Amino acid sequence: MSSTETVEVTGHLLDTGVLARVLDDVLEYGGDYRVDRLDLGREHDDESYARVCVGAEDTDTLQRILMRLQTHGVNKVDPGEAVLRPAPRDGVFPDDFYSTTNLETEVRLDGSWVPVEQPEMDCGLVVVQGRVRTVPVSDVRAGDRVVCGASGVRVVLPPQQLEEGAGFEFMTSAVSSEKPQALLVRQIAVLIRDVQAAGKRILWVGGPAIVHTGAAPAMVALVRAGFVDVLFAGNALATHDIEAALYGTSLGVDLSHGAGVPHGHEHHIRAINTIRRCGSVAAAVEQGVLTRGVMHALVEAGKDFVLVGSVRDDGPLPDVYTDVIEGQRAMRAQLREVGFCIMVATMLHSIATGNLLPASVPLVSVDINPATVTKLADRGSVQAIGIVTDVGLFLEQLARELVPTYTGTATAAIAT
Amino acid sequence: MSSTETVEVTGHLLDTGVLARVLDDVLEYGGDYRVDRLDLGREHDDESYARVCVGAEDTDTLQRILMRLQTHGVNKVDPGEAVLRPAPRDGVFPDDFYSTTNLETEVRLDGSWVPVEQPEMDCGLVVVQGRVRTVPVSDVRAGDRVVCGASGVRVVLPPQQLEEGAGFEFMTSAVSSEKPQALLVRQIAVLIRDVQAAGKRILWVGGPAIVHTGAAPAMVALVRAGFVDVLFAGNALATHDIEAALYGTSLGVDLSHGAGVPHGHEHHIRAINTIRRCGSVAAAVEQGVLTRGVMHALVEAGKDFVLVGSVRDDGPLPDVYTDVIEGQRAMRAQLREVGFCIMVATMLHSIATGNLLPASVPLVSVDINPATVTKLADRGSVQAIGIVTDVGLFLEQLARELVPTYTGTATAAIAT
Amino acid sequence: MSSTETVEVTGHLLDTGVLARVLDDVLEYGGDYRVDRLDLGREHDDESYARVCVGAEDTDTLQRILMRLQTHGVNKVDPGEAVLRPAPRDGVFPDDFYSTTNLETEVRLDGSWVPVEQPEMDCGLVVVQGRVRTVPVSDVRAGDRVVCGASGVRVVLPPQQLEEGAGFEFMTSAVSSEKPQALLVRQIAVLIRDVQAAGKRILWVGGPAIVHTGAAPAMVALVRAGFVDVLFAGNALATHDIEAALYGTSLGVDLSHGAGVPHGHEHHIRAINTIRRCGSVAAAVEQGVLTRGVMHALVEAGKDFVLVGSVRDDGPLPDVYTDVIEGQRAMRAQLREVGFCIMVATMLHSIATGNLLPASVPLVSVDINPATVTKLADRGSVQAIGIVTDVGLFLEQLARELVPTYTGTATAAIAT
Amino acid sequence: MSSTETVEVTGHLLDTGVLARVLDDVLEYGGDYRVDRLDLGREHDDESYARVCVGAEDTDTLQRILMRLQTHGVNKVDPGEAVLRPAPRDGVFPDDFYSTTNLETEVRLDGSWVPVEQPEMDCGLVVVQGRVRTVPVSDVRAGDRVVCGASGVRVVLPPQQLEEGAGFEFMTSAVSSEKPQALLVRQIAVLIRDVQAAGKRILWVGGPAIVHTGAAPAMVALVRAGFVDVLFAGNALATHDIEAALYGTSLGVDLSHGAGVPHGHEHHIRAINTIRRCGSVAAAVEQGVLTRGVMHALVEAGKDFVLVGSVRDDGPLPDVYTDVIEGQRAMRAQLREVGFCIMVATMLHSIATGNLLPASVPLVSVDINPATVTKLADRGSVQAIGIVTDVGLFLEQLARELVPTYTGTATAAIAT
Repeated sequence: MSSTETVEVTGHLLDTGVLARVLDDVLEYGGDYRVDRLDLGREHDDESYARVCVGAEDTDTLQRILMRLQTHGVNKVDPGEAVLRPAPRDGVFPDDFYSTTNLETEVRLDGSWVPVEQPEMDCGLVVVQGRVRTVPVSDVRAGDRVVCGASGVRVVLPPQQLEEGAGFEFMTSAVSSEKPQALLVRQIAVLIRDVQAAGKRILWVGGPAIVHTGAAPAMVALVRAGFVDVLFAGNALATHDIEAALYGTSLGVDLSHGAGVPHGHEHHIRAINTIRRCGSVAAAVEQGVLTRGVMHALVEAGKDFVLVGSVRDDGPLPDVYTDVIEGQRAMRAQLREVGFCIMVATMLHSIATGNLLPASVPLVSVDINPATVTKLADRGSVQAIGIVTDVGLFLEQLARELVPTYTGTATAAIAT
Repeated sequence: MSSTETVEVTGHLLDTGVLARVLDDVLEYGGDYRVDRLDLGREHDDESYARVCVGAEDTDTLQRILMRLQTHGVNKVDPGEAVLRPAPRDGVFPDDFYSTTNLETEVRLDGSWVPVEQPEMDCGLVVVQGRVRTVPVSDVRAGDRVVCGASGVRVVLPPQQLEEGAGFEFMTSAVSSEKPQALLVRQIAVLIRDVQAAGKRILWVGGPAIVHTGAAPAMVALVRAGFVDVLFAGNALATHDIEAALYGTSLGVDLSHGAGVPHGHEHHIRAINTIRRCGSVAAAVEQGVLTRGVMHALVEAGKDFVLVGSVRDDGPLPDVYTDVIEGQRAMRAQLREVGFCIMVATMLHSIATGNLLPASVPLVSVDINPATVTKLADRGSVQAIGIVTDVGLFLEQLARELVPTYTGTATAAIAT
Repeated sequence: MSSTETVEVTGHLLDTGVLARVLDDVLEYGGDYRVDRLDLGREHDDESYARVCVGAEDTDTLQRILMRLQTHGVNKVDPGEAVLRPAPRDGVFPDDFYSTTNLETEVRLDGSWVPVEQPEMDCGLVVVQGRVRTVPVSDVRAGDRVVCGASGVRVVLPPQQLEEGAGFEFMTSAVSSEKPQALLVRQIAVLIRDVQAAGKRILWVGGPAIVHTGAAPAMVALVRAGFVDVLFAGNALATHDIEAALYGTSLGVDLSHGAGVPHGHEHHIRAINTIRRCGSVAAAVEQGVLTRGVMHALVEAGKDFVLVGSVRDDGPLPDVYTDVIEGQRAMRAQLREVGFCIMVATMLHSIATGNLLPASVPLVSVDINPATVTKLADRGSVQAIGIVTDVGLFLEQLARELVPTYTGTATAAIAT
Repeated sequence: MSSTETVEVTGHLLDTGVLARVLDDVLEYGGDYRVDRLDLGREHDDESYARVCVGAEDTDTLQRILMRLQTHGVNKVDPGEAVLRPAPRDGVFPDDFYSTTNLETEVRLDGSWVPVEQPEMDCGLVVVQGRVRTVPVSDVRAGDRVVCGASGVRVVLPPQQLEEGAGFEFMTSAVSSEKPQALLVRQIAVLIRDVQAAGKRILWVGGPAIVHTGAAPAMVALVRAGFVDVLFAGNALATHDIEAALYGTSLGVDLSHGAGVPHGHEHHIRAINTIRRCGSVAAAVEQGVLTRGVMHALVEAGKDFVLVGSVRDDGPLPDVYTDVIEGQRAMRAQLREVGFCIMVATMLHSIATGNLLPASVPLVSVDINPATVTKLADRGSVQAIGIVTDVGLFLEQLARELVPTYTGTATAAIAT
């Protein structure tokens, strides 16, 4: 071990298992460790402190280990100053750039710790006039000053502290208490009200199953009552919603088998053509062509939506970003002031949003497919709370909790 | 084709695809066919009539084809008389026994058509004093007179007619109408009320997820309000329910990951031991040991339950049938007067019950796992309507629909 | 029924169930029918002929029904001439445009039937100088002459004929024969050799699980042996492959739980940055930076690949199309002379490719997730044969069948 | 905290996370802790030592916590002597009985540590003439002397030590190395040879998918080559295997959709009736009725099998235990000398076997369904290695590795 560095970490190291993960990561990245000091929180509310000497064969490996450990809130005892190097070309970072996490981070410039603005994972850190921003590799410009190596960088709010403060006490409490799902919906409703009362925005990310499960009326009620500030989705949710609105039908879903209905209903491509003729979803509302549904409700309520396309799209609708990098930029521009994010029935756009969100924004993912929830957490959205349930019944219950005048999808559907 | 026989079928042959399935089955079983006559229902409400000559290399193959076709409501033009042969030994049918379906069937004895009592699939037909009963192979006795071959047997109510009359019009209607899940729950509530009003019994089949998803209070409300006449389950549902009742805890479920909680909570084996000491679930209620939960509610309401064990059981509870054949007999004895069956979150006991039920009993299977629903239909329960949804929210909604005083699991849990 | 039209269809109508589906669709689309004539194939190898009068309340509905029925190979008895109308604006079809299927189709212009070039679903038909091309809505230009309504359009090769000729006799044969999976792999190997011998190209569509399951060596062997003419993929497959090549590691997969490894391995973003610095994947090979893996093998062998991005991408690699519509165009440009398509472990790019492929190209989809296979067929790729299996073992077996010198991933990995 | 006890644990406490789990469990069971001493292994190969004082409100709670902690290898510093109490009735333990784990355990009697014979989870410990046996609650007799409380009991071999010695080094090694599935199969083959060379028996647990995926020829090859000493299964595997053998057919599986074939093939009930007439599977082989397949191979090779029924069974075959408790006893009787267990495609019988097996027996679970693997580990079979893969291709590869003369299912099937 020719290169070594001493790091330290404070917190609930034992009962959260974080120390185990830290030591595991050192080995996995090809390094080795020696625990120099461990001050135990003797009782379970006390914090512990650990100081660990980390070694590696070469400086490069050591730097990577140190950057990795920061994702656990482990920082260098002697942080040093940030090293800045110019980006060699547009769209290219220096080789040893510091790869960001989505955690609250600070960079030491001229002896002072400067907070990173809008933390986002897998970005570089660019310093401009004493401010530090996250920049994705596609957006870096030649000559931008980029933080390199782990020197002078520290993570302020590690994930285990996030979990404690996320406002979902009963979900993360000991498993010996019962957790009825209906109670869970109520808890989310309370959180949404709190976030709103605090002046923060509610971000929704949704997939077409919102329409297929018959939950569109519940979703419309939530939009109208002001609980949806911005919606991220793809071409499919908007198209199916509009198809249902235009043709009095929808793709439907075969409830007896839980499977989608065979393709060939060319209605969806006609719906897209109609909106393209109008010019945009908003224009279709204005022209009286689109008179109901989720997209209509968003336009009427003056709420934002960002639709980003994918390679399997038909059409698409004129509002859809066909360039995914531009789509990411549009999504990023909507993240300021978001205080809560709820993802419903979409893996692609959920992961895309999770990639962009700071870990400090509470995040609930609702899907009947457990893989969606698991993947989100695996990819770094450590704050994600997953609810594996039926999207239709979930939104129905949530609308009942949040919107006193909402009398239920069933009634709404019968009345229509 | 040395052996041939002419069969006929009447009904909505074209738009239901039944004729295609019939001809397909003939080929698959190694036979061949010639369509001799096809009188078309020209408009879509008209019935059609088909007469088909079926051939096979030998009589045995032909007989098997004919028995198979009866599952589609296809009967011989010249039905003949039933052939009866004695069972050679206890627990053994004659080689060419008629293997039953779960459809309404009649047997021709001395020129008269006698209805089969309590249709059940994969049984033999035993004739005693002019009556015809279904008998499973384990229960046949040496010398019992068993119907052999397809001669003198006809299916009266084929599956496509069942589907039309099952009371779920909107579910089987064209897919172009929307099918919100909340509306579906309401429809099931209506059906349950109707069945009850007609003096029939409601059969529930349940798995432990009823407890894990926090739906026990909803289930208790349904029991108390009289919507559960009999419950089929295994050792697990009863044990987890009782464990929750005795220890104020339950195995719980990690809602954030949808996964079960690790084993090792030895509470469940203590709960079992406690009930074994009392002697039975009912005795535990009587002795004041068991004071809440689903099993307690059933005992208090004087309702029946049949618990049948499996090889993975711990204990089991003293009420559990450890012999599965005896368990099947106990289940069979509860099927009289059942007018509706609802299966919730259990594959093993759902398929077991599907094996025993006549196809004429409407059947709803609710599970978050689509495989449960698919397997049930694949194994012959053609009347099964599957609902792929969250069990907790489903029972919550159903209790709200059926029990006016039920204010919700959330409230109930908080109050407790 | 104020509007009526007579249609006809020839083929194996009864045993394939196609007539049932046709009549069902008429009702579902709000029309009605009268079967005027049905000439039965009496024996099961004979074709049948049906003539059906279809009616609807208005001409628009009737036209939609007729367009729908063409997906089953049902055409008008009196086909008429194609009606052409100019596209009103760039990117907008006339309201009543004919929405295409992926089946072989002909258009009647001046009394002659002209074949549609490169059939593709959900497009319009544009006529230029007597030729008829499929054009997606995004690519139509104002004034283009677009076929409208169902008049003068007929489907030549309906799906049930496709199925018969797809070269997978044993897969679609009666279920009574055994179908060992190893035999299935061998059958696909035979088909790939046949397609190649016929001078056609083999198209692969792949997801990152090819790398995660350790199947990259098998894939490299297939590329080198000439069995991969073109690869469609996203940023993920290429990135994980390159990451494994550059760092001697990969994201790996936790075989004991079947789950992905947690994110945070910032290797992937470094791998992307490295290739961006080189300029392209090919440049990285040329510069000696990228020296092994699937992408390296494709470049060395001079084979094509099309990488199309998605909104969840990091980076992306410089070769990735970030505009999904441009990506679709690039994929479309590679479809000429494709004689076989195999899709491995990707839902997004499989469906995207299925959207573009004519139904006449045999298609195999291999995924451990049954939903991928089901969705592909549901969305109109009727020719898709699905294989639900493990991708790693499947590619291993396929490489052994096709590449005599391939001694197995295990050996390859040990040797490295 | 009125009751306290001091416990200690030695091992790789930090990097395995075991200390975190221990402290977590104390809180979850309603207790509290104080870490009195922690001697760190400073380098990652060193063992650590922890001494923790555990407290609870009452003695009962404390005893339960202590029993729970033993599952992690945490024992009392002052172990005391075992407390024995008589079972109050047949089939009932004393209230505070010690509930066993499947780990190696010792009981202190008269100052000496006596090893528990045949460790099994969820049992009681009965002392007879100085020997200590695990006894399930159903088998305890009134007056049997049962160990109560945690006093005088210690776990010798905790799970984290098991994991290290299980012989699957590369599976549990750092994720940065590649893990091709083909290499995994080879590793299992090596382990099977090693176990056999050590004179231990190989236990297989199998489900009907072995037949459905066409893997029966591979399985037969493994039986004949001596790699299957005993098979645990249900009625279904044996019935489908015998049906395939008798009728030259099998239920088959629709490979294009991964779904089972619809029921109604009454062949399976005829196959059962045939074997019932013979008297047993072995008798059917002897009488020349059963001439091929997996069951035939087992009988010919003189190998043992235990078939235990379930409530969904038809028939069953005469060899099937219909009483599940008797079935458990028969399985238990086969566990002596088992050195390796492989479970293939069955959740019910896998969990049942996991319940009975000591944790010291290496265990591999192979299933295309990740839930099977997860549930097994959740229920206490900590040593289980899960492989989520295709059963057909897995057995094919394993047979090729282990049986030099095996030329593959494909060839075998073609030859037949």
